[in-house]
Amino acid sequence: MFRVDLNSDLGESFGAYKLGMDKEVLEVITSANIACGLHAGDPMVMAETVQIAAKNQVEIGAHPGFPDLQGFGRRNMNLSYEEVKNYVIYQIGALEAFARKEGKSLQHVKPHGALYNMAAKDYRLALAIAEAIKEVNPELILLALAKSEMVKAAQEIGLKVAQEVFADRGYNPDGTLVARGTPGAMIHDKSIAIPRVVRMVTEGKVTAVNGEEISIKADSICVHGDNPLAIEFVREIRAALKEANVKIEPLKNFIG
Amino acid sequence: MFRVDLNSDLGESFGAYKLGMDKEVLEVITSANIACGLHAGDPMVMAETVQIAAKNQVEIGAHPGFPDLQGFGRRNMNLSYEEVKNYVIYQIGALEAFARKEGKSLQHVKPHGALYNMAAKDYRLALAIAEAIKEVNPELILLALAKSEMVKAAQEIGLKVAQEVFADRGYNPDGTLVARGTPGAMIHDKSIAIPRVVRMVTEGKVTAVNGEEISIKADSICVHGDNPLAIEFVREIRAALKEANVKIEPLKNFIG
Amino acid sequence: MFRVDLNSDLGESFGAYKLGMDKEVLEVITSANIACGLHAGDPMVMAETVQIAAKNQVEIGAHPGFPDLQGFGRRNMNLSYEEVKNYVIYQIGALEAFARKEGKSLQHVKPHGALYNMAAKDYRLALAIAEAIKEVNPELILLALAKSEMVKAAQEIGLKVAQEVFADRGYNPDGTLVARGTPGAMIHDKSIAIPRVVRMVTEGKVTAVNGEEISIKADSICVHGDNPLAIEFVREIRAALKEANVKIEPLKNFIG
Amino acid sequence: MFRVDLNSDLGESFGAYKLGMDKEVLEVITSANIACGLHAGDPMVMAETVQIAAKNQVEIGAHPGFPDLQGFGRRNMNLSYEEVKNYVIYQIGALEAFARKEGKSLQHVKPHGALYNMAAKDYRLALAIAEAIKEVNPELILLALAKSEMVKAAQEIGLKVAQEVFADRGYNPDGTLVARGTPGAMIHDKSIAIPRVVRMVTEGKVTAVNGEEISIKADSICVHGDNPLAIEFVREIRAALKEANVKIEPLKNFIG
Repeated sequence: MFRVDLNSDLGESFGAYKLGMDKEVLEVITSANIACGLHAGDPMVMAETVQIAAKNQVEIGAHPGFPDLQGFGRRNMNLSYEEVKNYVIYQIGALEAFARKEGKSLQHVKPHGALYNMAAKDYRLALAIAEAIKEVNPELILLALAKSEMVKAAQEIGLKVAQEVFADRGYNPDGTLVARGTPGAMIHDKSIAIPRVVRMVTEGKVTAVNGEEISIKADSICVHGDNPLAIEFVREIRAALKEANVKIEPLKNFIG
Repeated sequence: MFRVDLNSDLGESFGAYKLGMDKEVLEVITSANIACGLHAGDPMVMAETVQIAAKNQVEIGAHPGFPDLQGFGRRNMNLSYEEVKNYVIYQIGALEAFARKEGKSLQHVKPHGALYNMAAKDYRLALAIAEAIKEVNPELILLALAKSEMVKAAQEIGLKVAQEVFADRGYNPDGTLVARGTPGAMIHDKSIAIPRVVRMVTEGKVTAVNGEEISIKADSICVHGDNPLAIEFVREIRAALKEANVKIEPLKNFIG
Repeated sequence: MFRVDLNSDLGESFGAYKLGMDKEVLEVITSANIACGLHAGDPMVMAETVQIAAKNQVEIGAHPGFPDLQGFGRRNMNLSYEEVKNYVIYQIGALEAFARKEGKSLQHVKPHGALYNMAAKDYRLALAIAEAIKEVNPELILLALAKSEMVKAAQEIGLKVAQEVFADRGYNPDGTLVARGTPGAMIHDKSIAIPRVVRMVTEGKVTAVNGEEISIKADSICVHGDNPLAIEFVREIRAALKEANVKIEPLKNFIG
Repeated sequence: MFRVDLNSDLGESFGAYKLGMDKEVLEVITSANIACGLHAGDPMVMAETVQIAAKNQVEIGAHPGFPDLQGFGRRNMNLSYEEVKNYVIYQIGALEAFARKEGKSLQHVKPHGALYNMAAKDYRLALAIAEAIKEVNPELILLALAKSEMVKAAQEIGLKVAQEVFADRGYNPDGTLVARGTPGAMIHDKSIAIPRVVRMVTEGKVTAVNGEEISIKADSICVHGDNPLAIEFVREIRAALKEANVKIEPLKNFIG
């Protein structure tokens, strides 16, 4: 039997600014990556998002980003190794306090935006993140882009790591994502995207943008909750996975 | 035998900005109140301050403040009950992650600046702080102005509370501090201040600004580390306390 | 012939966060109050909003608020006289640079949120705002709640002032707004609200919440652009004003 | 007769955090680069610094930086062309309002920290800065690293530009500064540094780190005010310049 987790980025509202259909998406996923106040989110949003996740029995993870609210954590920043470590530690701790308030502990950590993209390719940055997680709580799982430097860094230091895949993104032959804006970056046709992601889970394979078959490990599928269509898309992925006899459950059930 | 704790506000540097003689004051105190990044401090400063405190075997506490870096948390802000709770939870969590990294747990929480001053007089605000602490970790001690609403709120909900006194401040007959800028607010003469604070600890009494004798509980003495004279003043208080047979030790040793 | 200005708060988006139907509302108003980055807005949003306003020949005003992005400038803060002055100067200057880039100059300044509400009742705070404006540019108009302390402060120092009224809010007999959450605070029935605001403009009178007739000066009507219904409401106000022979034009045309 | 300007970075304090000996350095320089609140400085600091500069008849310039207070604007950030333009416009405007309050106008703009260093080598970034300045006020002078891409960009679009040199830094043969941490980066020996900078002004030449003679244009010398020794160093540079018959005056007197 196959198992897979469904994760989504949540808690990205800030003060008067509302973003995302958090309540709806929390009904269809198993792991929530919750923003921690540096690139998005604030203590009120964190408290509420953690509470709803707990009610829905969705596992809670920290979603740390660069200290760049105006850029939503999407702008590359050149931070030192120690800075990255300490920003990640800070954000994990802040979120964990809200989890504890709900009688829960954190399951995982998934870096956000530019931090995620940079660390996917930069081993040293990936190592700073992995070490930060391990120093705060060695039981936490790093949720990372499949085949990325983050996976290597976590394995190197003995941190649990889960590999995530995308239903709607094209892959290069080396397993990196095709850059947005490039042909083949996005897969908009559901009738292609859904069987494709099911195959990643059940066969461990995906067809890269150049037609090559590559192997990929799909512990978790990243899904979105921006709009009703995105929520509907998640429901269809769920249905297809069940059809294929894949059990949808949180990372902690199968990442050892 | 009498016991008292010595506490000081630390980790108030920010980025390129340096404040306080943290290393020196950490050699003479037993409890450190460490800023958590909203009114002062940042992840780098927090990491470093916690590490030095741990090395000096000084107990670590969170020092949460208003989200007002430009005002150093000294400007009154009108936040809702839930906002205060969530800001305090956020800050406790962020600091605790750095403590855990050093193999330590937090001992206490002391609100900062305007949050402290407002909560000393406003029971509802005090209750928001006390509840936030209890929800994150019911073993934490609230370090609060002696005789204040914070003491009442903590006692009301069964949270451990330690009462702090000031060697260099005048007291009103009701136990509140004489407002800065008012005659009798500051006690600059060491030969008055030191015996006065020793008496608070050993007799539980202090002479208010109007000459009246009032009772006061002195679990901890708040000291400063801004400059070499302040450090010297702490050394003299320590010597006088020892002379009077008072044992100087962290709150957790005697606050039950 | 009567004249009135229609003003609205704009440019309140921030980074990835979008707020308000700025483009639509800019087609139906004569004066735009544009956020300046401290409570809302950022340099990208300011640049874009000023540009669209200029294209629509809508007059541009600064909308300074408290330095409280997380609270959207709606939480009372206790700032000194000098702090208020300097925060207002800073924000006017920042916005003016974008206006100049479009070959425009600023017409007015309208304080935002808690700063507006506090200054409406606090003469000293109102004076700090009025002086800040005058020191930067004595030709600017302060757009202020009708009958408020802001009007008095501006008149006292010889700063041009325009009085604004609300179509959808109840008035107390002293001209202050009925507090939100209190009976009579909001007027939801358009068939009441629209003739009421036309009467404020043409007769200078409004019926207070206790039934009393009070005099009021309506130089500008504050309207909203949050949603399609709000835009539609502005169109209906415009139609009713034209029907009543009121000319809708920007403040600078008639505030001397 | 030769002329040169002396410039220094000022107004870098923030809230409770004090940095630099601004008053002292304002007695020995002719142009002040004042931080604008994004990487350092705040409205109170800006108001005070501009006021003291005006009193000392020192010319005022904006010193815009990246929106990164925690990193003091020293961390590289990857912003878009439009973002850089708008951040620069915002900061120029904010500072100009304080200048106007003192009856002064701005003389120049000098980018700060990572923005300066990146724009020195990146023509497109330099162009974004130059265009921002020109769009706000085409009379402003861009104060830029001698021989850098900023100089080229300003010349290309017809913006006035002044070239600055450093007394205490080593130069590569192409005119760029020797990177800090590299041998030859810093010139600590005053008996070498002072004649060297005088020669840059009077002969337009400097010996690069490899011994090669290179030509350089020295419109302004960047000096520091961090500590009493730095101030003393400026006094010695002044004396040596006067000795060599160089007139020390602000940029606007000779940059056309």
